[in-house]
Amino acid sequence: MIVVMKQGASQTEINSVIKEINDFGYADHPIVGVERTVIGAVGDEGTKFKLMEILSQLAGVEQIIPILKPYKLASHQFKQDKTIIELDNGLKIGGNEVVIMAGPCSVESREQIMESAKVVSECGASILRGGAYKPRTSPYDFQGLEGEGLKLLRSAGDTYGLPVVTEVLRERDVELVAQYADILQIGARNMQNYGLLKAVGQVDKPVLLKRGLANTVKEFLMSAEYILSQGNYRVMLCERGIRTFETATRNTLDLGAVAVLEQETHLPVIIDPSHAAGRWGLVAPLAKAGIAVGADGLIIEVHPNPHDAMSDGLQSLIPQKFCSLMKELSRIAQACDRSIAGLNKQ
Amino acid sequence: MIVVMKQGASQTEINSVIKEINDFGYADHPIVGVERTVIGAVGDEGTKFKLMEILSQLAGVEQIIPILKPYKLASHQFKQDKTIIELDNGLKIGGNEVVIMAGPCSVESREQIMESAKVVSECGASILRGGAYKPRTSPYDFQGLEGEGLKLLRSAGDTYGLPVVTEVLRERDVELVAQYADILQIGARNMQNYGLLKAVGQVDKPVLLKRGLANTVKEFLMSAEYILSQGNYRVMLCERGIRTFETATRNTLDLGAVAVLEQETHLPVIIDPSHAAGRWGLVAPLAKAGIAVGADGLIIEVHPNPHDAMSDGLQSLIPQKFCSLMKELSRIAQACDRSIAGLNKQ
Amino acid sequence: MIVVMKQGASQTEINSVIKEINDFGYADHPIVGVERTVIGAVGDEGTKFKLMEILSQLAGVEQIIPILKPYKLASHQFKQDKTIIELDNGLKIGGNEVVIMAGPCSVESREQIMESAKVVSECGASILRGGAYKPRTSPYDFQGLEGEGLKLLRSAGDTYGLPVVTEVLRERDVELVAQYADILQIGARNMQNYGLLKAVGQVDKPVLLKRGLANTVKEFLMSAEYILSQGNYRVMLCERGIRTFETATRNTLDLGAVAVLEQETHLPVIIDPSHAAGRWGLVAPLAKAGIAVGADGLIIEVHPNPHDAMSDGLQSLIPQKFCSLMKELSRIAQACDRSIAGLNKQ
Amino acid sequence: MIVVMKQGASQTEINSVIKEINDFGYADHPIVGVERTVIGAVGDEGTKFKLMEILSQLAGVEQIIPILKPYKLASHQFKQDKTIIELDNGLKIGGNEVVIMAGPCSVESREQIMESAKVVSECGASILRGGAYKPRTSPYDFQGLEGEGLKLLRSAGDTYGLPVVTEVLRERDVELVAQYADILQIGARNMQNYGLLKAVGQVDKPVLLKRGLANTVKEFLMSAEYILSQGNYRVMLCERGIRTFETATRNTLDLGAVAVLEQETHLPVIIDPSHAAGRWGLVAPLAKAGIAVGADGLIIEVHPNPHDAMSDGLQSLIPQKFCSLMKELSRIAQACDRSIAGLNKQ
Repeated sequence: MIVVMKQGASQTEINSVIKEINDFGYADHPIVGVERTVIGAVGDEGTKFKLMEILSQLAGVEQIIPILKPYKLASHQFKQDKTIIELDNGLKIGGNEVVIMAGPCSVESREQIMESAKVVSECGASILRGGAYKPRTSPYDFQGLEGEGLKLLRSAGDTYGLPVVTEVLRERDVELVAQYADILQIGARNMQNYGLLKAVGQVDKPVLLKRGLANTVKEFLMSAEYILSQGNYRVMLCERGIRTFETATRNTLDLGAVAVLEQETHLPVIIDPSHAAGRWGLVAPLAKAGIAVGADGLIIEVHPNPHDAMSDGLQSLIPQKFCSLMKELSRIAQACDRSIAGLNKQ
Repeated sequence: MIVVMKQGASQTEINSVIKEINDFGYADHPIVGVERTVIGAVGDEGTKFKLMEILSQLAGVEQIIPILKPYKLASHQFKQDKTIIELDNGLKIGGNEVVIMAGPCSVESREQIMESAKVVSECGASILRGGAYKPRTSPYDFQGLEGEGLKLLRSAGDTYGLPVVTEVLRERDVELVAQYADILQIGARNMQNYGLLKAVGQVDKPVLLKRGLANTVKEFLMSAEYILSQGNYRVMLCERGIRTFETATRNTLDLGAVAVLEQETHLPVIIDPSHAAGRWGLVAPLAKAGIAVGADGLIIEVHPNPHDAMSDGLQSLIPQKFCSLMKELSRIAQACDRSIAGLNKQ
Repeated sequence: MIVVMKQGASQTEINSVIKEINDFGYADHPIVGVERTVIGAVGDEGTKFKLMEILSQLAGVEQIIPILKPYKLASHQFKQDKTIIELDNGLKIGGNEVVIMAGPCSVESREQIMESAKVVSECGASILRGGAYKPRTSPYDFQGLEGEGLKLLRSAGDTYGLPVVTEVLRERDVELVAQYADILQIGARNMQNYGLLKAVGQVDKPVLLKRGLANTVKEFLMSAEYILSQGNYRVMLCERGIRTFETATRNTLDLGAVAVLEQETHLPVIIDPSHAAGRWGLVAPLAKAGIAVGADGLIIEVHPNPHDAMSDGLQSLIPQKFCSLMKELSRIAQACDRSIAGLNKQ
Repeated sequence: MIVVMKQGASQTEINSVIKEINDFGYADHPIVGVERTVIGAVGDEGTKFKLMEILSQLAGVEQIIPILKPYKLASHQFKQDKTIIELDNGLKIGGNEVVIMAGPCSVESREQIMESAKVVSECGASILRGGAYKPRTSPYDFQGLEGEGLKLLRSAGDTYGLPVVTEVLRERDVELVAQYADILQIGARNMQNYGLLKAVGQVDKPVLLKRGLANTVKEFLMSAEYILSQGNYRVMLCERGIRTFETATRNTLDLGAVAVLEQETHLPVIIDPSHAAGRWGLVAPLAKAGIAVGADGLIIEVHPNPHDAMSDGLQSLIPQKFCSLMKELSRIAQACDRSIAGLNKQ
């Protein structure tokens, strides 16, 4: 780390900083500049947060600048190769094929989820999405079919040969959800629910971790690190829009962050255009942009009958629009020397 | 709700909207404007989210504007009088006396928490704060003393006659934390952890709910509503800074939101200047502003020896500065025809 | 507009609102709901802001909701067809061909701008960009070659057959810049410099209006309206990233806004991936995403020798990377049934 | 500055960086860490931006960290004592007395501004505010009385012995406005209109510089530096709310920034609670908080008849409320060992 001294800091103050650095077993490297002195501290990173806090309170210190990144297992430096996550049916996420996950926001009934699985399968999606546990802003809103929803989702996925992804909201549900789902989703509101992150880090299922509404790329990778540090290396990151001052879209899809993630981490990156847009009319252009920016997959809300959807109907595509979007996505993927997983087989 | 039709919407489209409104048992009130038609829909609010979603997808509809607020129990309309929360020792939060909660970020040892309780008590604080379970961005940081920390905190509070407030991070810990704490704190990262909100809504302990980093006042009140709707009416709201583009402070303390809450809700409002500021040098002016804007209490980090703090030492006040701040706060409170609870008795 | 009365508003208060509405010559349409009354007001929009302000201060009024959009000339309702802006050399912006503008941040010397024009022309760009007047955050930074820069830019454009776009910073420079430039650029910092907007609205040159760092889509369109209302209809809108809490990119490129603009306005939309990214390594993926989301053009910083650039070298592409990006962009454009203007001729 | 090399950067890459540093006449100070090398560069700051850009593009370089602050004249390091700005009538801004500026958003008529001056004077304000040139989001809104407004404002100020502050929007109006106004206001939208900043830097009138909606404290001080660097040292900074995701207030008043400015600069700081709040009901608590946080002055909108206001009536206080607020502010000021300038004489 680099300790920046205040302009006019005394030699005594500089010496105190150096002593503290040495007391922690770090080597000191003072650099005397024209206007001020800065001191490099080199040593064991394990105690760095503690040392930073102490130094920041010493007289004459203006600022402490950390040099190393706080995440390790999630970084490209730790693992050069892109992580490829393979599901039980052989589908690979993170490879050259772009994976499309699609389905309704919520599992509402057997008919609805069966019909959804049928249409997304026919249009070429590879994975079925559907919420059994729903985090809702209002306690008075529909909260999901819960256990019953899990069974219906599994059954629909099995019927149409689609692995399923669904959100787990609470630690106590992790085991149950893991019995039914192929991929466990951690929602944006839970990106820093560390108990839940540790819990999914201890099961042998891939995790789709959504970025929190107001979380930086760095925090996003730190949350992935929570899961990785428990031994579960099959984590994919999902950009779904951040909260900004703009209200013309529900959230602001941050495709720049996707480009940054590509450089910073080996983990696959998925984009959710539906939640970012908040309106179905904006989903197609954002989905296309998502493929072009380099995403490894998309997760899109599709509902056989949005008119009757119990949640998020406003942003769901009808089957017909989803099918034509899939064709457009395929063309974009090819223009990027990739292909869409579900359409690849044809 | 109000349905705004697109300019040039056909009469058939307008009729479809009216039919849907009527099918839900709502009355329709069309208003034909110069450029477009809007349609008021009046009826039972229980089904409004569903109706809104359906209407928003009909041809010719541009926008749906809800009229009623989504929170009920938390609103001033539901309860005119300010809620006063009384603790077991008779201390009241929400009345004319401003309550100061103070103590270290984390409980680190018996000596540290005892010393902390001693100094904050001597300076006039009424409630002892201290974290036993710590939500940390990095999985490699100190995570708190957990159960042992709870006992130490309780013991320190009892020794110095201070009720204690501490964070509960997981549903499964609620029962245990409620055995030791006088007030259960829900942290900013968990403001929309609905399982946890429901869990604390079912215990008979006051709850201090912190605003999420990127959550609106409306969402904040909806999260309070989750707790209230479970039957626990002793909820206080805590503004602790929101995330913005500004990096000169750790977060942006939103005192305008405190003024809004005063108008919108009957629940007491607490301000946390320490987490918003992120640096101890900014805590005093923000604490003073917090009293002036009308807060019912403050929660301030104080550490007997910030040099040795295991977390957040950077923003902790030393006892001497806290004591002199208390005197300043008392003067501001008096200028607002209020007083500081702990100093009131003297 | 819709006037929402407070719950429990008295009939006297409601009558006062109705009287005020009628005094302005609007018709009133009261709707009595279960919990409160709302009143529609229909009339001449010319006085609506005044009426809204007055109503908002009457007793019993909770909220005023405007219905109509504040921009007219910029809206799709005013003009159904997409605006196509034709330059003197016949190049069209807003049609099926995507236009690429490229060049250095600043005009630094004859050699530099000639070399820049040569390379961007060879790679297939259609328009040359280069700043003669530079808005710099620090008064101590390089501020541009000004008048001399304009001449060099024009000369380079003429030599290689490229129309030129350059920023105009001050009202008093508009006439001069218009003599040399084919397109006048209004920078992000000046998006709400209304004097400047009016000034460029009075010249017969196309304008490229950049979105302000913290301006909404609605405000963006209002600023376009300022130009259009002066009689200059050749306005193109440029999304260049907004300011958010995220610091991993310099700004957050808001491609969702581009999708919204496509629905809201007939004006062509350009994307600037260079300023949003702030680092050249992120420019290519964002440029590709920009084509995929539907932009009518891109403006990209290219410098023959970024090592020597006097501003923004960090985000400039070297010629080699720009050429290979052009090939990738062409493939994406074709996958969207469009083509790149400069490459089209080949 | 500090150059952070990538993990695994080669010695050749390190040597290239050192060579470049030396070529610029800087001394190099390499520090070899456990995981990577960082290199300090010490030298003449005049060329630092150029050097930073070049270094950032060399192979093996991960990041460049500047150490020195970009503003000089505005910094506390440049001038230890607080700047006190004295107006022609002897009123001092920046001293122990807090200065209250009040008046309508716009000058609308002789009667209105005379009546305004009378009431704000009677209530104890020291300076009269009123806009003659109005920056309006819509080209169709009232744009101010311009020259005629300046004369009316001056006349009202003279009649009631109040210096006047008014906004100047364009460079070409600076001279004229300076003839009538005691303080020139630069509005938030123009905080980075550098031509205008330079222009007001060249007149001998105090300047009230408003913070831009999305500008950091650092950028705010850089804009002050533009004015100071032209030789006008009488600059006061005005916090008026920043743009965030929160819509419950018009903007988010950033009082933490005021506390930071107190530490960073010697310039006086003014707070505008009216524009931040956007609703008169929130002005009083924010004004009180502004005094408590340490502002040197407040600027508050007061209108004798907000019902008839031509702009911003919604956030204007009526005279009666302003008078009672002044009494409250006086009490807060006294609790902070300060006093209100206008009330001090009594």
